[in-house]
Amino acid sequence: MERVPVLKIGDILLVSIQIDMEDQTALQLQEDLADRIVETGCHGVIIDISALDIVDSFVGRTLATIASISRVLDAETVVVGMRPAVAITLVELGLSLPGIRTALNVELGMALLARERDFEFKDIDDDEDDADEAVVAAS
Amino acid sequence: MERVPVLKIGDILLVSIQIDMEDQTALQLQEDLADRIVETGCHGVIIDISALDIVDSFVGRTLATIASISRVLDAETVVVGMRPAVAITLVELGLSLPGIRTALNVELGMALLARERDFEFKDIDDDEDDADEAVVAAS
Repeated sequence: MERVPVLKIGDILLVSIQIDMEDQTALQLQEDLADRIVETGCHGVIIDISALDIVDSFVGRTLATIASISRVLDAETVVVGMRPAVAITLVELGLSLPGIRTALNVELGMALLARERDFEFKDIDDDEDDADEAVVAAS
Repeated sequence: MERVPVLKIGDILLVSIQIDMEDQTALQLQEDLADRIVETGCHGVIIDISALDIVDSFVGRTLATIASISRVLDAETVVVGMRPAVAITLVELGLSLPGIRTALNVELGMALLARERDFEFKDIDDDEDDADEAVVAAS
């Protein structure tokens, strides 16, 4: 059975799907990815599908499942590298990949994930700042 | 024909080989990679072979050719993710991948490339410092 490798790059796990997704491959990938997220504590998953000519409903569902599994393990998923023809076919098939974020390439996907994390941290900081200000105002 | 995607991450091009290398695929990859190096000006190429169970002499030659092409285009190549069994078989076959640098995983490969670049830049800096010092000493 072929296996899709999961590559760790900093705080991100990168998966490049190049082979045809079959039931077993998809299940194995979900398992491998979940294991790696827990093992590494990574907060982002990038799935590159630039090698895929076709994304059918099975692949769409697999991507959605991966995104859901990652989310409950505190990691965000971004699908990158979708070809224009794939996007057109997807929408024509009525599949709009709900709950999956996309970016044009790996770098933009990384930037998206970094922004989200920054944003989250900033939110917490802002709250703390607000609290500090409230203390100052009260004193 | 299947095509191996070339992913740009910062100053590095990442290639994850998951499919069986045939003549056409190998040629196409060499061409794609050379095009991307020129197009992006990247100085590093990382080839992940963690999905490969076997590296035969053809794949070995392909990797060596990619490394040579990259070198003349001012990019260094590191092969990462080799499985222990693959390493053993390679040596038993008398293939030691001359001229190809390796690292255990993508992150270590990136670190290796970064160190080399730093080293090169530092060399130039050092020379400049020496020149400065020489001027100071002369004045």
